[in-house]
Amino acid sequence: MISEFGVFTRIQILLHSSDNKCITSRCSEGCYLLRYYSAFFFFCFFWPDQAFVTLATSDSYAKGALVLGRSLRDHRTTRNLAVLLGPHVSEPFREALRRIFDEVRLVDVMDSGDSAHLALMKRPDLGVTFTKLHCWTLTHYSKCVFMDADTMVLSNVDELFEREELSAAPDPGWPDCFNSGVFVFRPSNETYGKLLQYCTEHGSFDGGDQGVLNSFFSNWATADISKHLPFIYNLSSIAIYSYLPAFKQYGSNAKVVHFLGKTKPWSYTYDTTGKRVVATVQESSTHPGFLLKWWDIYASTVAPLLVKLHGDQQFHSGCVIGEVAAGVRHLDISQEEPAPVSSEERKQRWEQGQADYLGEDSFDNIQKKLDSFLK
Amino acid sequence: MISEFGVFTRIQILLHSSDNKCITSRCSEGCYLLRYYSAFFFFCFFWPDQAFVTLATSDSYAKGALVLGRSLRDHRTTRNLAVLLGPHVSEPFREALRRIFDEVRLVDVMDSGDSAHLALMKRPDLGVTFTKLHCWTLTHYSKCVFMDADTMVLSNVDELFEREELSAAPDPGWPDCFNSGVFVFRPSNETYGKLLQYCTEHGSFDGGDQGVLNSFFSNWATADISKHLPFIYNLSSIAIYSYLPAFKQYGSNAKVVHFLGKTKPWSYTYDTTGKRVVATVQESSTHPGFLLKWWDIYASTVAPLLVKLHGDQQFHSGCVIGEVAAGVRHLDISQEEPAPVSSEERKQRWEQGQADYLGEDSFDNIQKKLDSFLK
Repeated sequence: MISEFGVFTRIQILLHSSDNKCITSRCSEGCYLLRYYSAFFFFCFFWPDQAFVTLATSDSYAKGALVLGRSLRDHRTTRNLAVLLGPHVSEPFREALRRIFDEVRLVDVMDSGDSAHLALMKRPDLGVTFTKLHCWTLTHYSKCVFMDADTMVLSNVDELFEREELSAAPDPGWPDCFNSGVFVFRPSNETYGKLLQYCTEHGSFDGGDQGVLNSFFSNWATADISKHLPFIYNLSSIAIYSYLPAFKQYGSNAKVVHFLGKTKPWSYTYDTTGKRVVATVQESSTHPGFLLKWWDIYASTVAPLLVKLHGDQQFHSGCVIGEVAAGVRHLDISQEEPAPVSSEERKQRWEQGQADYLGEDSFDNIQKKLDSFLK
Repeated sequence: MISEFGVFTRIQILLHSSDNKCITSRCSEGCYLLRYYSAFFFFCFFWPDQAFVTLATSDSYAKGALVLGRSLRDHRTTRNLAVLLGPHVSEPFREALRRIFDEVRLVDVMDSGDSAHLALMKRPDLGVTFTKLHCWTLTHYSKCVFMDADTMVLSNVDELFEREELSAAPDPGWPDCFNSGVFVFRPSNETYGKLLQYCTEHGSFDGGDQGVLNSFFSNWATADISKHLPFIYNLSSIAIYSYLPAFKQYGSNAKVVHFLGKTKPWSYTYDTTGKRVVATVQESSTHPGFLLKWWDIYASTVAPLLVKLHGDQQFHSGCVIGEVAAGVRHLDISQEEPAPVSSEERKQRWEQGQADYLGEDSFDNIQKKLDSFLK
């Protein structure tokens, strides 16, 4: 929102959340400008009614949310940025999120005492899912795009707001399911209530939000092609290796990259002098180009902010200067893609567990990989 | 066709192929009934104008085609069965195919002297692709469903003929591409010519027919949801392990299984006494239930036919009786599915190269797997 109206650029306003948990009105000049009724006036006239929404349940995921928010700002989105916050995110990270996002909303399902809490009592296994579903309660927006904290935009994607609920890209694992890492939705208390009810009655076939949402929006695969977001709006780093020729053909159009998998960008270390990512062999399945882009944003804008906000507090930024510890190696951070493989080779790789460890199936790398299995 | 009209049940007619390669008219009672003009009469009135089409380029793939054809017959398809045959398929296999398929058409691109041969001269890398594209020349059918020889139907799928060209299911590797293992098309010499031209000018981004067809029918991902076949019409055995919870949720509705990957069903050995599949550890990524079903059809109907047709000739059926060789092990052939894994575990498996070797990540199995890598 803010960047659209230059005069308000340095003002951040966090309005009442519906459960009165989050009341803040702040001006970077240190003065309080707008409160309550003036905020309401402002809200009516200038607050965009559409937003990108993400979720941070820990300090680590907050790093992801910060890079995502920064990437959206860098590509000049005209929509608001909102983040749902789990109760375990520390104060310096919350403050950093407030600097980049227009709205930071704490969601503590355990403490809410509402229908979500009741649902959680019945299905304690679905804690994070209930937190994510809270996005449907952002009813001061008419339409939102949810993006997981392990995604990053590579260009402006405001055109996603032309889509309707529920629009999402196919999941590469089972492509008649959508991947719930990026989806377009319409906040609605009615839908939220139905989702909670569905969760408590049916659970989730995969134990997470993707299972619930696919069962609830069950006609996604068959009803309306306009609700199929192109895969380039949720490009799993996994898909790059599972069908490399397609990535080479279509990957240059990627708009959103999704760092699906156990090892997230923030799990690596970054050498700020050499501008290169440092990884052990076990951590090497992410496309080096995208990973480097993530770290470029993180090291240049997010880490300095976090260092400042932590003050004297200990803080693991993930950045190192110059020499790195023994036992780690540098990922090839060049933008070069791995050597092409044929369809047949691709099929063989599937069979062999996609054994393309950094594009080097050498004895040395395989030995290390195996050592890690056999520990 | 034949089963639709009881009186003709035991008659198989192979009409002229357009290049005059295949002229056969045969009656199982040993008499020749219909020829030339009477065949033309028969063709006009009783020959279904729709067909399932497959392709066999070797004796091994011919085994697959025979099982596919048998599975279609077993599930009482009312459409014709046609097979395109590469020049390297031996005579006993050709004869076996004639017993199950209504039409067996030899396609020898090298020898054809037509536009396909000219195209092959320019793009010698695309030999099998050009053979497959020949299916568009079956213009005595108004509509066809192409199915790769490594597919098998689990129920009647004649409803596929309600779809239009080009309908196909998403590829799990890059889901904005369709998988070209199962697709609905309309034979047309015009389309065939355009496809050949496209091939020679642009090649194939993945070196095979899937790349060519996806580039040619480039709006598949975005234009018409009715052209997206549900994934259960082309269920890759790969997808089972990449998102197991989805397979557990939707897999029971599977209609076509696709044995994608290096190790095909015919690469295994089958113990006909114990009715179990025998495999080395390297060959264990296919879902045991589907694999067993394939071997059940092969061992009960296809292998006896092949044995008979080979007469005194040496022939490797793949079937053994009783004890099996040392160094191999039995796949678990029960219909039980592997233990459920959560979304998070699934993500971890991706990262680790989907190291679910027969659902047993034990030291013993991993050691063997690794030994095979390190040879």
